[in-house]
Amino acid sequence: MGNIKVTVWNEYRHERHNEQVASIYPNGIHRAIADHLEGVEGLEVATAVLDEPDHGLTDERLANTDVLLWWGHLAHDEVRDEIVEKVRQRVLDGMGLIVLHSGHGSKIFSKLLGTNTGMLKWRDDGEIERLWVVEPGHPIAKGLGEYIEIPREEMYGERFEIPAPDELVFISWFEGGEVFRSGCCYRRGRGKLFYFRPGHEMFPVYHQPEILQVITNGVFWAAPVDGAKTSYGRVAPIVPVVQS
Amino acid sequence: MGNIKVTVWNEYRHERHNEQVASIYPNGIHRAIADHLEGVEGLEVATAVLDEPDHGLTDERLANTDVLLWWGHLAHDEVRDEIVEKVRQRVLDGMGLIVLHSGHGSKIFSKLLGTNTGMLKWRDDGEIERLWVVEPGHPIAKGLGEYIEIPREEMYGERFEIPAPDELVFISWFEGGEVFRSGCCYRRGRGKLFYFRPGHEMFPVYHQPEILQVITNGVFWAAPVDGAKTSYGRVAPIVPVVQS
Amino acid sequence: MGNIKVTVWNEYRHERHNEQVASIYPNGIHRAIADHLEGVEGLEVATAVLDEPDHGLTDERLANTDVLLWWGHLAHDEVRDEIVEKVRQRVLDGMGLIVLHSGHGSKIFSKLLGTNTGMLKWRDDGEIERLWVVEPGHPIAKGLGEYIEIPREEMYGERFEIPAPDELVFISWFEGGEVFRSGCCYRRGRGKLFYFRPGHEMFPVYHQPEILQVITNGVFWAAPVDGAKTSYGRVAPIVPVVQS
Amino acid sequence: MGNIKVTVWNEYRHERHNEQVASIYPNGIHRAIADHLEGVEGLEVATAVLDEPDHGLTDERLANTDVLLWWGHLAHDEVRDEIVEKVRQRVLDGMGLIVLHSGHGSKIFSKLLGTNTGMLKWRDDGEIERLWVVEPGHPIAKGLGEYIEIPREEMYGERFEIPAPDELVFISWFEGGEVFRSGCCYRRGRGKLFYFRPGHEMFPVYHQPEILQVITNGVFWAAPVDGAKTSYGRVAPIVPVVQS
Repeated sequence: MGNIKVTVWNEYRHERHNEQVASIYPNGIHRAIADHLEGVEGLEVATAVLDEPDHGLTDERLANTDVLLWWGHLAHDEVRDEIVEKVRQRVLDGMGLIVLHSGHGSKIFSKLLGTNTGMLKWRDDGEIERLWVVEPGHPIAKGLGEYIEIPREEMYGERFEIPAPDELVFISWFEGGEVFRSGCCYRRGRGKLFYFRPGHEMFPVYHQPEILQVITNGVFWAAPVDGAKTSYGRVAPIVPVVQS
Repeated sequence: MGNIKVTVWNEYRHERHNEQVASIYPNGIHRAIADHLEGVEGLEVATAVLDEPDHGLTDERLANTDVLLWWGHLAHDEVRDEIVEKVRQRVLDGMGLIVLHSGHGSKIFSKLLGTNTGMLKWRDDGEIERLWVVEPGHPIAKGLGEYIEIPREEMYGERFEIPAPDELVFISWFEGGEVFRSGCCYRRGRGKLFYFRPGHEMFPVYHQPEILQVITNGVFWAAPVDGAKTSYGRVAPIVPVVQS
Repeated sequence: MGNIKVTVWNEYRHERHNEQVASIYPNGIHRAIADHLEGVEGLEVATAVLDEPDHGLTDERLANTDVLLWWGHLAHDEVRDEIVEKVRQRVLDGMGLIVLHSGHGSKIFSKLLGTNTGMLKWRDDGEIERLWVVEPGHPIAKGLGEYIEIPREEMYGERFEIPAPDELVFISWFEGGEVFRSGCCYRRGRGKLFYFRPGHEMFPVYHQPEILQVITNGVFWAAPVDGAKTSYGRVAPIVPVVQS
Repeated sequence: MGNIKVTVWNEYRHERHNEQVASIYPNGIHRAIADHLEGVEGLEVATAVLDEPDHGLTDERLANTDVLLWWGHLAHDEVRDEIVEKVRQRVLDGMGLIVLHSGHGSKIFSKLLGTNTGMLKWRDDGEIERLWVVEPGHPIAKGLGEYIEIPREEMYGERFEIPAPDELVFISWFEGGEVFRSGCCYRRGRGKLFYFRPGHEMFPVYHQPEILQVITNGVFWAAPVDGAKTSYGRVAPIVPVVQS
C-alpha cells in the first residue's frame, strides 16, 4: 500500500489577527497538525488555506488528496460554493474528510450531512472537557485511555443538529453541565467523514498528544479503499438471468 | 390528538402530456393518492403541484402541513431553490416527508441527505417487482404480507447513492436480476423521511391496495411529535452545577 | 385501537428489606410506576414480582402483556432461565420491553442484546444527573424540555457494554465527571426495547414527573404493531417467477 | 503490525459423509479456505474442527486467534455451551468473527446477536445468486465488481431474524424471487462480526475467487484494534473534577 496523501486545510485567520492564538500556533493550526502528521509513517502531508487561490483546493491538489482535514470558523461564508461542491463530490467518490471543531458550521459539513450542523450550544469559558470513549474497539480509539481530558476548552453542548452518526466514538462531558457527541463517523457515497470536536483556537489543544493521536487514527480510518466498481444510469433492456 | 395534515405534492406533467399516463391517472398522481388518503380516518388532505404559484408550497400551505408527499421526475430542476430550502427547513423543524419513486432525484431529497441520490440503475421494461419486508414489526409494515408483488414496474437497481438508512423496511427483487433498498427511513433534525420506491407513471401502481397501505402507514409514522424543547447558540457564562 | 396492556415487573426486595427504600416506595417500585400508568388513557396496567409463582410471568400474564417493564438488581440470578427465555421469545414476537436502571444487568437484557450489559462504571454518592435529549423529535422525548435534571442519583458511567443503540435519545451528564448513554432504543425480532437509566432505589426518582413522562412515552413507543406476516423454513421448489 | 492470526473452524461432517461434498472439498471446507488464506501476505492460518477435543478451540488456540471463521450446519447442537461462551467472551474482548452460510444457525451467532438467527427461508434447488454491493467504499468490498454471481447456490430468503446490521455490504438476488441481507457487519463489545451468506456445501462456492476475496477482506476488517483501555465496576467516591 502506498502512502496516504493528507491535506490539512485551515481558514488561517485567527492566527494572523489575534496575538494569543498566534502565540499558540505561530505558523497556523494547519502547520501544527501537519507537523505532527509528517512524523507519522505512511503519510504524505500538504496544507492549504482559505486565502490561497481557490482556497488552495485546486483540482490538482484535490486529485492528490486521500484525506482532507478541515478547520474553519470565522469565514465559512467566504468559501466559494463551487469549491465546496468539488470537495463534496470528491468525498462521495471516496476521499476521507475530517472536520475539526468549529468546522461543524462549514458549508462542506452541512452540505454532506443535509442538516443545520451549525446548530449547537456553546460557551467560551475555558472549562474542563472529558472525551469518554464509548467504542473502545474502534480504530479511531487506538492507543487511548478511557477518556481524554482537556484542561481548558470551549464548550459545545447538545442538541447538535446532526444525523445520528453511523458510529459514535466519543461523548464529551463539560464542567458546566453539558454533554456532546464529539467523535462522529459517517459513510457518505464511497467516502468516510469523521467529526472531531476539540480544537478551540485559544487553547493549545492541537499540541496535546492524545488529540494528535486521534487525528492520526482518523486519517488511517478515513483513507479511501479501492472498493467495488459501480455504474449508474440506464441499463440495457431486460435479458433473462435464467436461460430456459 | 388532532388530525394529521397531509399535502400531496406532484410535478403533474406526465399526466397532462402523455395519454397512457392520463388514462391511468386522469386527475394526476396526486389526486389518486389524495383520494385514498381522504378515506383514512385522522387525516386531512390537500394537494399542491409544480405549476401553481410557489409550486403550491406557500408559507401558509407549509405551515398547515404535517406530512408532505413528493412525486417528481421530469422537472426536478424547475423547482425553485428557495422553495426547496423552505421545505428542507420545515422537515428539520419536524414536518414528515415521504419521497416517492422518481422523487429520489429531487432537490429536496438530495439536499436533505447530502449525497447524489439521483444515482442508481434503471430499466423501463415493465418487469415484476417484489418488495420483501425485512422489518415486519415496523409501523410502516402494518397489515402487509411477506412481500408486495407489483406485476409491471420500472426497475431501480443498486448501487443507490444514499446514506445507509436509519431503518430499512423493504428490499426489492426485480425480474431482470437487480435488488434495491425500496423502503428507507431517516430521521433528520426533528423530522422523519420515508423513501418509498414504487410508482412509475406508466403503470397503475398507486391504485394497488398494498401500495396505498404503505403510503398510509408512512404518513402516520412520519407525522410530527410534540417533542422536547431545544435551544441553540451562546449560553450564559458557566455557573457551577454543583454549589460548594 | 384497543388499550395497551402493560405489566410492570419488579424484583421487589430492596423495598421489603431496607427502611429508606420502603419509605420512598412503600408498596414497591412497581406500584409507584403502575399507579402513574393507571392514570394514563389507553393503558391497562398489571404488576408482577420475582417472588410470585413463575415470577408472576405465567403464560397467561405474558399473553396479556403488550409492553413489559423490568426493574431488577440484587436477584438477577434468581430469575429462572426458562422464564427469561419465554420473555425473550415474546419480545422477538413483538412485545415491547422497557428495562429500567439496574435492570441493565438482568438476564433478559443481556440475552436479547448479546453483550455483557452488566458492565459499566458506577458510584453511589447521590450526585446530580442531567439527561440531555439528543433526539428532540423522537416520540420518547414528547413533552420534555432540553434536559431532565435529577437532584440525587447513582452514577452509571461509560464504557457501557451494549451494542450501539438503533436510536440514542438521552445522554447523561454526572457531577463527578462521567457520561452515559441513558436512553437507548433497539428493535429485535418484531419487538422494541427501550433502556432507560434513572431509578436508583434510594432516591425518589420514580416520583419525578419528567421521569414518569418518559416511561409513559416509552410504553407507547414500544407497543406492538400489527406488522407484516412472516414465514420461515423450507419453501417449495423453485417456480419461475416469470412465466415464459 | 504483526501478522493476523486466523483460525478457520469447521463442523467437518458433510465432507466426510457425503461423496459429492467430499469431491468438492476433499480435505474439508476449512482446508479450502485455509489454503487460500495461507497465500495472503500478513496472515497466519490454523484450523479447528468440531470433533477435535474442545472442538479444537482450546484456551491456547483461542488465545492465538485474532479472527475466527465459523462454518457449521448439521451439528450446531453438539457444540458445547462452555466453548460457545468462551468464544463469545473472546469476541467481546476484541477477536473478530466471520460466520459463513449455515453458520447463521450456530449457537455463537445467535448468542452474540440475541435473536433467533436460525430463522429464514431456504430452498435447495441450485439456483443463481447475485450478491449486489450496496456499500462500494467498504473495506469488505475491496477489489470487487458491482456484484458477484454464483451460478448454483442454495437460496436463503428474508425475513432473516437478525438485528439490523451496523453496516450492510451485500444484498442477494435469487432466481426464484427472493432477496437476502448477505453481508452484515456488527460491532459487539470490542469485537467485530461479519456474516457472509454464500457457501452451501454441495457447490464449489469456496473455490470461486470473488468469494475468497470477500473472506480475505473480511479477515482484515475484523482483525482486532489495539483500542482504548476500559475499566468497569465501582469507582472511587466522587472527587470534584473542578477544584474550587
